[in-house]
Order: sequence, then structure tokens, then C-alpha cells
Amino acid sequence: MNAQGTDASAPVTVIGLGLMGSALAGALLDRGHPTTVWNRTPRKAKPLADRGARVAVTAGDAVAASGLVLVCVLDYDALRTVLAPVAEAGGLAGKALVNLTSGAPEQAVAMAAWATSHGAGYLDGGIMTTPPGVGDPRMMFLYSGSEAVFETHRPALTALGDPLYLGAEPGLASLYDSALLGLMWATFTGWLHGTALVTADGTTATDFTGVALRWLNGAVSGFLTTYAPQVDAGHHPGDDATVDVQIAAIGHLIHAAHARGIDNSLPELLKATMERAAAAGHGSDSYASVIEVLRGGATRR
Amino acid sequence: MNAQGTDASAPVTVIGLGLMGSALAGALLDRGHPTTVWNRTPRKAKPLADRGARVAVTAGDAVAASGLVLVCVLDYDALRTVLAPVAEAGGLAGKALVNLTSGAPEQAVAMAAWATSHGAGYLDGGIMTTPPGVGDPRMMFLYSGSEAVFETHRPALTALGDPLYLGAEPGLASLYDSALLGLMWATFTGWLHGTALVTADGTTATDFTGVALRWLNGAVSGFLTTYAPQVDAGHHPGDDATVDVQIAAIGHLIHAAHARGIDNSLPELLKATMERAAAAGHGSDSYASVIEVLRGGATRR
Ligand SMILES: NC(=O)c1ccc[n+]([C@@H]2O[C@H](COP(=O)([O-])OP(=O)(O)OC[C@H]3O[C@@H](n4cnc5c(N)ncnc54)[C@H](OP(=O)(O)O)[C@@H]3O)[C@@H](O)[C@H]2O)c1
Ligand SMILES: NC(=O)c1ccc[n+]([C@@H]2O[C@H](COP(=O)([O-])OP(=O)(O)OC[C@H]3O[C@@H](n4cnc5c(N)ncnc54)[C@H](OP(=O)(O)O)[C@@H]3O)[C@@H](O)[C@H]2O)c1
Repeated sequence: MNAQGTDASAPVTVIGLGLMGSALAGALLDRGHPTTVWNRTPRKAKPLADRGARVAVTAGDAVAASGLVLVCVLDYDALRTVLAPVAEAGGLAGKALVNLTSGAPEQAVAMAAWATSHGAGYLDGGIMTTPPGVGDPRMMFLYSGSEAVFETHRPALTALGDPLYLGAEPGLASLYDSALLGLMWATFTGWLHGTALVTADGTTATDFTGVALRWLNGAVSGFLTTYAPQVDAGHHPGDDATVDVQIAAIGHLIHAAHARGIDNSLPELLKATMERAAAAGHGSDSYASVIEVLRGGATRR
Repeated sequence: MNAQGTDASAPVTVIGLGLMGSALAGALLDRGHPTTVWNRTPRKAKPLADRGARVAVTAGDAVAASGLVLVCVLDYDALRTVLAPVAEAGGLAGKALVNLTSGAPEQAVAMAAWATSHGAGYLDGGIMTTPPGVGDPRMMFLYSGSEAVFETHRPALTALGDPLYLGAEPGLASLYDSALLGLMWATFTGWLHGTALVTADGTTATDFTGVALRWLNGAVSGFLTTYAPQVDAGHHPGDDATVDVQIAAIGHLIHAAHARGIDNSLPELLKATMERAAAAGHGSDSYASVIEVLRGGATRR
């Protein structure tokens, strides 16, 4: 084991060989880790066996084979179904359990307590890519829970992508996962609305997207970098562009999209949210002040 | 004049010395362009005069001073108020008029016709940064309208930022501007929602934003690059992640945010939009298929 994550001798077990679990096991094999796999439906292990994986007959055998056990199944119900018999038989004791199954933060917290009570070290993970991105060092894998598990098994985790440790609270990775997906869906939908607008006038989505990516990765990222410390300070000076100016500008977007028959639910909601911020006294503040409205609670439009 | 945009001898006039117009004139002076300025309220010209700008007494004098005239005032009403008397006196004939005032695409189209009828070449522009970003070559300035004006005056336009020519249709720059701002507001709001979520559990906005920027500029940008040609082809295979999978995942976000008292208007709308796509038969397609719902017209939730 070394600090560069290059130790390829550590054995790893992967439980769950759906699209994602198969990609995880494949990345470990690519880096030379002796890899044991198990899946409820055994035939999904075949392509991995062909690449050198050892196929366990039972989940218990799979867990017994390695000190590090990655699990990636559909959901927490499936996770319990697979692991409960292993735990009852004492099979989790001394193991490092890394759970890459998606779920809510509370589920991760409960699973951490359960795994710990059965003698395992527990690390919860969020995979911020799709299966084809697994193994790409630019892709983020978020972890929270046992720092000892994270540090000890960093080499194997580095085979999957770039491992980021968020903290000891086991729900953090899941919370970040949800927050980042929310950002993604908002960005996707804003991009599709803009794409619908410009393609209505004959531009291609591909041409627009080249400009949109420069915009996102340049100026928009710069704004987020400016606004994040404003949120932390609870002080949002509107030096660059105020909420009132944005409210005026979004009118042009809504008008242009309406004229082209495009659904304006998203910009209408964004405008209403900005107007709530202005009504709460943030008209001359930066867009960062809109967080006060979101934190204002479950009040709906 | 040369192709590298380094010719600093071309005289330029800037009309409108608000925050943005002053930044434009400043960037031209920084690159050594002989710069003539005019503003309705004359005292705003003082800092630029101190930096070497020539201050014209009337808008007509300002236009007469240079072959290239940039105008950046509040809106199109202000633009007409300033330029109409100049045009009546024949002052626009032979000029290259570059309008950086924000407006709707239709306003740009009408202004192009008007300027042309008075003998000017017309280029419409959208400034994709705030005043402090003017002069930074990473910042995009979008242009549409006369390609001759764009090519002839590229050196001066390059002093302001990176000039991108979108096409001869004068409304295109304004249309792109609105579309990109819509993407920005959606991204901002999704980011603030995620920030509200993670900061509720004690993370800082700054920590979350570092991860969010890697996510946006890495995996999310990769998805947009994959989805743009899908939109152009009208074919959205859900190889990586389907609309149905996203609908399941957004439930976790809504649940976690609700438990923390955060306003869920945005994720609820995104979920409803995805559900409309699924109901229209796109459940197994990629998120790119959601554009069909947006194009479906002005139907509201
Ligand atoms: N795919 C992605 O892009 C992606 C990205 C990030 C996170 N994730 C998360 O990764 C996890 C797996 O996703 P996936 O894409 O691999 O899904 P998948 O292809 O549908 O695979 C699901 C896996 O769960 C197993 N499973 C389901 N119910 C089970 C049960 N009751 N008992 C035992 N095993 C059960 C399946 O076994 P069988 O083969 O026997 O059915 C299969 O191995 C999910 O939590 C998902 O949210 C996926
Ligand atoms: N600021 C930004 O971040 C930004 C970014 C992109 C685009 N823009 C666009 O740039 C344009 C100018 O914005 P700004 O930030 O410079 O605004 P600003 O600081 O408010 O300046 C407004 C300018 O318009 C002039 N003006 C207003 N009404 C006029 C009238 N009736 N006749 C003559 N002049 C008039 C003002 O002259 P007085 O000084 O005499 O009032 C001033 O020069 C707007 O269209 C804006 O949307 C701004």
C-alpha cells in the first residue's frame, strides 16, 4: 500500500454486477486488483470472469475473499437482503464495507450504524458519473464515513475515479450526491430551454452548446466562485449584477420564448423566485441572496 | 488593420458611459485606441478623459469622430433618443454601428433595418460578462448582423473580449444572450438549492461549490456534449441514464430538502417536467428528450 494509489495487489470484492457494479469491477481488474465478484443473477459475472475475476458462489464467500468489499445494488432494500445473512453469520467482522448504492442520507446513517454493530468499518459513496466514466480519473467519487477505511483503501478507490473524502458523517456523500444531481437537472433544463429557443430560429443545438459550455465553464463558474463566500458570510453585495437587473432581463427571455411557442414554466418559476427575493428586500443584492428565499421554508409559490 | 486584432490605431467612439459603456471605453483606451466618448450626463466622461479619451460635446460630434461607433445605453428607447437626431442629420451614413444595448431579438432586427436605411452598417452584440470582465479575452462578446462590420473592426472588438460572430440575422446575438442567461439563472438556482441542502448539515457553501464546479465543468459538460447532437438528430437514446432513472433519483433530493425545510419549487417543477416527458413516451430516453416537452408549446403545469 502506498500514498500514490498504485498498489494493485490489494484484493477487492464487488457485490452487485448491474451496469454500475460491472463497471466498478472492470476498473479494478484493469488496475490489476485481484477481484472477486458476486451477483444475484450469476450470468452477469461471466464477462468479468473472462477478464480474470474470481466468481464467488455466495455473497458470504465473496465477502470472505477480501478485506475491502464494495457493494453496488439497486437500493437499500436489496443491500439488506444481500448483506443481512452474511452479517448474521459474523462475516462482516473486520471488513471494510464501501457502499456505492444510491439512497437518502438517513439510509446511509442507519446502514453505518448497522455495519458498525456487525464489526465492519463503513464508508458511504456517491458515484458522480455513469458506468462508461468509471475508471476515468477526472470523475468524482464522493465518500463519507470511516476515514480509516478511506485512507487504507485509497489505492483501490482511486482505480474507480477521483476519490473525495467529505467527512465522518456517513450521510454527507449522499447529501452531496442529491445536491449535485439537483444542480445537474436544473442546468440540463435551462440548457434545453435555451436550446429550444435558439433552434426555433434555425441554429443547431450543437452550435449553441459550444457557446453554452464556454459560458458555463467561464463566466457562470466565475459567478458561483464569487457568490459562494457571499452565502457563507450571509452578505450578498450586488456589485456586479443585482436581483432587480436579473428580473428585468428574464422578461426578455420569457417574451422571446413565448413568441416561439416554448414552454416557459422554468423561467416563470425563476422569475417568481427572484421576485420573492426582491420582495424580501434583496432587489439590490446579488443573485446569491436568493438562497434566503429557498431557506425560507416549504412555502410554495 | 491586421488579422491578429492588434491594430490599436483605429479610432472608436463609445456612446453611453454607464457601468458597461465606461468599461468598454476603458478597455479600448487600454489597448491604445483613440477613443471618443459621449454620455447624456457629461460628468461620467471625466474618469475616461483622465485616461486619455476625447470627450465629445454632442452625440453627433461623437459619431462624426470615428468610423466605428459602439453604443451601450439602458435600452432601445434610449438608443433611439440618442441616435435619431444624428441619423436625421445624415450623420450615420458610412458608419459602422455596433449596438451593445440589451434587448429583444425583434428590437435588434428593427434597429438593423433602421440603421441600414440611414446608411450605416449594423452589428448587434450581446456582452456575456459584467463590467469588471470587459477586456478579459476569455469573456465572450456575441455578434450578429453585418459580417463586413465584424471583420473590418475585429481588432477593436477583440479589445473588449473574445468576439464571436453568430450570423447575418441581426437578432441572433440577442437570442443567444437570452438563452445563455436562462441557462445561468437555472444553474444559479439549482446551485443555491443544493447549497441550501448541504449547508443545512454544516458544510460551507465554499466547500460545496468547489465540488459543484468540478461537476459542472466535468461530467455535466460531458452530458451536454453528448446530448446536443441527440437534440439535433431528434433521437435521444437512454444509454447512459434514462428519464425514468432521473425521476426516481429526484425523489431523494426532494425528500432530503423537504426534511431540511428547504423550498422545493424548483425540483418539483423539474420532476413534473420529467414526468411529462415520460408520459409522452420518453421514459427510456435520455434527458435530451425533455426538449420535446418544452417545445410542446405554452402549456403550463
Ligand atoms: N448507472 C448509473 O449511471 C449510476 C450512477 C450513479 C449511481 N448509480 C447507483 O448504482 C446502483 C446500481 O445501479 P446500476 O446502474 O448498476 O443498476 P442495475 O443495472 O439495474 O443493477 C442493479 C443491481 O442490483 C441488483 N439487485 C436488485 N435487487 C436486488 C435484490 N433484491 N437482491 C440482490 N440484488 C439485487 C441487481 O441484481 P440482478 O442482476 O440479479 O438483478 C443488479 O446487480 C444504484 O443504486 C444506482 O442508483 C448508478
Ligand atoms: N452591467 C452589466 O453587467 C451588463 C452586462 C451585459 C449587458 N449590459 C447592458 O448594457 C446596457 C447598459 O448597462 P449599464 O450596466 O451600463 O447600465 P447603467 O450603468 O444604468 O447605464 C445606463 C446608460 O444608459 C444611459 N441612458 C439611459 N437612458 C437614457 C436616455 N433616455 N438617453 C440617453 N442615455 C440614456 C445612461 O446615461 P446617464 O448616465 O445620463 O443616465 C447611461 O449611460 C444595458 O442594456 C444592459 O442590459 C449590462
